[in-house]
Amino acid sequence: MTGFPFEISATEGKARTGVLRTSRGDIRTPAFMPVGTAATVKALTMDQVKETGSDIILGNTYHLMLRPGAERVKSFGGLHKFSTWQGPILTDSGGFQVFSLSQLAKKSEQGVVFQSHIDGSKHNLTPERSIEIQADLLGADISMQFDECTKHPATHEEAETSMELSLRWGARSKAAFGERKKQNLFGIVQGSVYPDLRKRSAEILIDQGFDGFAIGGLAVGEGFDQMCEVLDYTPDFLPDDRPRYLMGVGRPLDIIESVARGVDMFDCVMPTRAGRHGQAWCDYGSFNLKNARFRDDHEPLLAELNCPASQDYSRGYIHHLVKCGETLGSILLSWHNIAYYQYLMQRIRSAIAAGNFEELRKEIADKTANGLP
Amino acid sequence: MTGFPFEISATEGKARTGVLRTSRGDIRTPAFMPVGTAATVKALTMDQVKETGSDIILGNTYHLMLRPGAERVKSFGGLHKFSTWQGPILTDSGGFQVFSLSQLAKKSEQGVVFQSHIDGSKHNLTPERSIEIQADLLGADISMQFDECTKHPATHEEAETSMELSLRWGARSKAAFGERKKQNLFGIVQGSVYPDLRKRSAEILIDQGFDGFAIGGLAVGEGFDQMCEVLDYTPDFLPDDRPRYLMGVGRPLDIIESVARGVDMFDCVMPTRAGRHGQAWCDYGSFNLKNARFRDDHEPLLAELNCPASQDYSRGYIHHLVKCGETLGSILLSWHNIAYYQYLMQRIRSAIAAGNFEELRKEIADKTANGLP
Repeated sequence: MTGFPFEISATEGKARTGVLRTSRGDIRTPAFMPVGTAATVKALTMDQVKETGSDIILGNTYHLMLRPGAERVKSFGGLHKFSTWQGPILTDSGGFQVFSLSQLAKKSEQGVVFQSHIDGSKHNLTPERSIEIQADLLGADISMQFDECTKHPATHEEAETSMELSLRWGARSKAAFGERKKQNLFGIVQGSVYPDLRKRSAEILIDQGFDGFAIGGLAVGEGFDQMCEVLDYTPDFLPDDRPRYLMGVGRPLDIIESVARGVDMFDCVMPTRAGRHGQAWCDYGSFNLKNARFRDDHEPLLAELNCPASQDYSRGYIHHLVKCGETLGSILLSWHNIAYYQYLMQRIRSAIAAGNFEELRKEIADKTANGLP
Repeated sequence: MTGFPFEISATEGKARTGVLRTSRGDIRTPAFMPVGTAATVKALTMDQVKETGSDIILGNTYHLMLRPGAERVKSFGGLHKFSTWQGPILTDSGGFQVFSLSQLAKKSEQGVVFQSHIDGSKHNLTPERSIEIQADLLGADISMQFDECTKHPATHEEAETSMELSLRWGARSKAAFGERKKQNLFGIVQGSVYPDLRKRSAEILIDQGFDGFAIGGLAVGEGFDQMCEVLDYTPDFLPDDRPRYLMGVGRPLDIIESVARGVDMFDCVMPTRAGRHGQAWCDYGSFNLKNARFRDDHEPLLAELNCPASQDYSRGYIHHLVKCGETLGSILLSWHNIAYYQYLMQRIRSAIAAGNFEELRKEIADKTANGLP
């Protein structure tokens, strides 16, 4: 197995902390990747994103192939230069959004033909095209295999059929990707809620020699308990020495419980989407700044968090901005939320290194249960 | 006459450059004041506004008295602390917007009773209340007298009646303001397009002892030529040693022609409003980034302008952001536009100091006439 050097410096139970060393910079794990769907982490400059302590961001193949077009991004020197983000970028394969966002998606063994949700134009996405877009045109540091996100709930037979298609698409993705020194390709473990399928999926992907492994098909409506159940065993099927990435997860509690089960990487639109809807995240959950209780609140969002958005403005001011529909409200809340997520990840990493991750895990669980004081 | 020290360091014709020294920092003149209507310069952080070279911003009494309420701003320590803008702030009196934005505004000798355009609540604005809001509650460094912005067109009789009301309101504003060392109060010259009225208005205001003088009732539909005509004579009625402020103006060409006629200070929503509508300003006028001609444009907005928004992103990227409705598009264009305005002001100041303002004036006029190459 090849791939970027991945150095695990400490573990506590199944939780691990370390560094994934890419050619564009180190990713401290467990890592949270802010989502930069359309070559922008919504409402923020890349300098602000960097300032939150984000080591890597995520880009969306589906969105970028439609607008501005993958070949156009390439003509601008790739996604890093186009977006001005100089650190590592992971791209998804488009497989998830082609089904959730596009119109009239038609699946075949070959791939998916679909119509753009923007202008109805017809497109074709295959494992080969997905890899071409991700690795060659966008220039992702980490590309994902093309896969089908198995629906939930699915019978064992449905899950197996879907998983096997993803495995065949995975093999084609790997063949299209070839051998690259400065770029990695991750496989995606499917198999829904069935341990035997998850195990087989992992074994075949390992055999194919991917550089890292995502756990797919979660955060699709199965709920917290069932997600934890799948995570109780799936990471055990994966090699210790390669990074594990849980796609599309999640809330702070989801993240910390996943870390406890051996996951290293996360992405989620939660912090930016919540920010655009007036919500601020903290250990106790999220609170909506639009609420009148914050009208005369002179406290900052989170004084202990070393981010201008969290420290320099009163909640009363942000309440005012949100009430007035001022863009700065979305900016400050998105900025704070990503900074909070990175602050959580930093505390997780430090706790594992110091051997008190279980205490942090309990603290976050208790705070979440109690809600904002 | 009192007021902040105003040191004029160079003149060329009627154009002047210098510094107005307030207790919260120096204002280099000619100065452009970005508009921070609701305690935010739309889509920007105050750090970004400061970084553009803005010395002073403007706040709107009408908006702030309705949301979050002037007493509430005071409870947060005033407008500077509430908004995090630490430099000087000039506030308008509310007199203009109470007529242009509110519902059912009823004018009497006493003042104006009106209904909020937001929730229909009833409010009362008088010269005394306007000064209380501006100077005591918001804590403006420069307050404006309460006035009536004379409609355009107006007959000589209408203009005279309106001007005299503004003069009586000006006297009451001055009485309410009293003597203050760290705050200034500006009078507003009215009189529409009639030299005799402008002259009388100026004489009475000078006699009342204001700290600076605004020229009101322009940029209300009279057009460029008639505005220039009024500015051909009105500044001459004002003392050389006090700042002159042209309210609500304008495009770069308006500004440079006003400077040529002796104006020192400006404010306008143009750069931020244009930015939210996809437009970028430069010496040649404004261009809309949504236009397909910018889709494959690798150039930055304005390479010579030392602002991240102007230098670090391709026009093609900003085109993409605007097309996708991404907030970062509004942010970058608003930021660039204010930076461009400040860059223009800096060149104006340097040109007057170097004795080549007439060359810059001709250059901007020629470029504006020719449009974007």
